[in-house]
Amino acid sequence: MSDPITSSSNPQIKDLVRLRDRRHRDRTGTFVIEGFRGITRALDAAIEIERLYVCRELFLGPNEDGLIARVADTGAPVIEVAPDPFSKAAYRDRPDGLLAVATQFDTSLEALELPSEPLLLVVEAIEKPGNLGTMLRTADAAGCAGVIVCDPTTDPFNPNVVRASTGMLFVVPLAVASSEVTIEWLRSKAVTTFATTPDATMLHTDADFTGSVAVVVGTEQYGLSDTWLERADHRIRIPMAGAADSLNAAMAAGITLFEAVRQRQPGRLSDDES
Amino acid sequence: MSDPITSSSNPQIKDLVRLRDRRHRDRTGTFVIEGFRGITRALDAAIEIERLYVCRELFLGPNEDGLIARVADTGAPVIEVAPDPFSKAAYRDRPDGLLAVATQFDTSLEALELPSEPLLLVVEAIEKPGNLGTMLRTADAAGCAGVIVCDPTTDPFNPNVVRASTGMLFVVPLAVASSEVTIEWLRSKAVTTFATTPDATMLHTDADFTGSVAVVVGTEQYGLSDTWLERADHRIRIPMAGAADSLNAAMAAGITLFEAVRQRQPGRLSDDES
Repeated sequence: MSDPITSSSNPQIKDLVRLRDRRHRDRTGTFVIEGFRGITRALDAAIEIERLYVCRELFLGPNEDGLIARVADTGAPVIEVAPDPFSKAAYRDRPDGLLAVATQFDTSLEALELPSEPLLLVVEAIEKPGNLGTMLRTADAAGCAGVIVCDPTTDPFNPNVVRASTGMLFVVPLAVASSEVTIEWLRSKAVTTFATTPDATMLHTDADFTGSVAVVVGTEQYGLSDTWLERADHRIRIPMAGAADSLNAAMAAGITLFEAVRQRQPGRLSDDES
Repeated sequence: MSDPITSSSNPQIKDLVRLRDRRHRDRTGTFVIEGFRGITRALDAAIEIERLYVCRELFLGPNEDGLIARVADTGAPVIEVAPDPFSKAAYRDRPDGLLAVATQFDTSLEALELPSEPLLLVVEAIEKPGNLGTMLRTADAAGCAGVIVCDPTTDPFNPNVVRASTGMLFVVPLAVASSEVTIEWLRSKAVTTFATTPDATMLHTDADFTGSVAVVVGTEQYGLSDTWLERADHRIRIPMAGAADSLNAAMAAGITLFEAVRQRQPGRLSDDES
C-alpha cells in the first residue's frame, strides 16, 4: 500500500469530491462506487476498478479485507485514508470506509445484446437519479434483458443512481441513446413498444406483453414526449382509482414490468385462456 | 394581515424549523405542509390549517391568491414573510412561498371506517419517510380503503412523508397502531392478511386478492417481524428473476397492490375462469 492520506486537501480527495460533478466524470471517464455491496457487485460484474480508498476506522463488518484482497488482485492500488478526509470524500452520511473509482463502461446501444423475446425497459428524459437507480433494481428483479435510457438529463454514473440501484447498475445491461435512434433500433429488432401514458384507453393489464416487448415510461412531471406517444406501437395506462393523477415514475415502471412478468410466466397464458 | 416577518430569529420562524423534529410536532400537535399542491389537498380534505406563511417574492404561479383566500376564509391567520427567513423555514431547496402549519389529525385505528370488501395496505416498522409517502400515493392510486402503519420508527407527519405523498396523506385514510392490535382488529373485521416475504412459496399472482384483503409489507432491510409472518393468513412473494434479492419496500407494496387491483376489476375473475 502507498502512504495513507491524512489531509482533506490531498488532490485525490479533491478528485473524489469533484466526481460528484458530471463534467468531471465525463472528462475522466470514471465514476465513484461507494460501499461494500456496490463494490462487490461491480467486481462480480467485471467492472474495472481503477483504485480503492479505504478507512479502517469506519469499517462496519468483518468482510472488508476479503474485498480489499479481491481489488488488489486486479492490480488496482489500495489507498488508506484517515477518517476526516475519507468522510469529506464520501457521499453517504454514514460511510462504511470503502470508496472505489471505476472506469465508465460502454453504454452504447450497439453493445446491447438481446436474447430471443426480450423484455426491455425504456426510460425517457429521466431527471431524478434515485428514480433511475430504483428502476434498474426493479428491472433486474423483473428479468429485463436491458434498460435503455433516452435523452437523459441525469447520467447513469451519477452517485445517486449507483446507490439507489443497489449495485444493479452493474448487472442489468444498460444503454443510453436518443429517442429517435432507440425507436429505429427497437423496430429493427422487432420489439413491440408500449408507451405508458395517463391518456391511453388500454389498461396495462389488457396489453399483450408476451414476445419481444419494451415498456416505455416518461418523466413524472411531463410524461412521454410526442415522439414516443406517436411512434410507439401501443399506448397503455395504469388505472388510477383515487385522487392522485399520477404515480411515481419508477413505480409506474415496476407495476407495468411485473404485469409483463405475470403474463410471461411459463404456463400462465394457457391458464388464462383455459 | 399581521406585520410581515423580516428576521430569521423571529420565534415563529424558529417554531417552523423546530417542527422538523418529531418531539416538537408531537408536543404541539401540529405539522408543516409545504407548497401549493399539498396545501390545496389539505384544504380539500378539510385538514385544519392553523396559520399560513407566505412569501410573495417566491411565488411560482398565478393561483396563490386564490389559495390564500381559501385559507383566510377558514379564519386562519396569513402571515407575510421576507425571502430570507422564509427560506430558512422552508424544507425545500426551491420553496414556492407557501408554508402551512396544520393540526395533526386522528390516526387511531378506531377512526378507520371500512367499506365492504376493502383493500388495505399494512406497513410495518417503516423507517424511510419518503417510502411511506410513496406508499400513500400508490395506495390512493390502487383505491385502498386505508393504510395502517404498525410500530413505525418514522411518524406520518414527518415533512418528507408529506412531500413524497404528494398530498395523498390527506386523502387516503391512515391509521397508526401496534402490530398486535392491528392483527386483532383486522381479524375482527374478517380481513384476510397477505404477508409479503421472500421466503414464501406462493407467488403474489397466485394469491386470491378478492374480498376483504390486507397486503402487509415490512422494512426493506429486515422484512416483516415474526409476529406478522406467523399470524398472517397467507405468505406471498414477488418472483425475483435477477441478481437482486429484494425490491424497494414501496415498490413491493405497489406491485402487490396493483396485482390485487387487476384481480378486483369488474368482470376480471370471470374472464380468467372462462
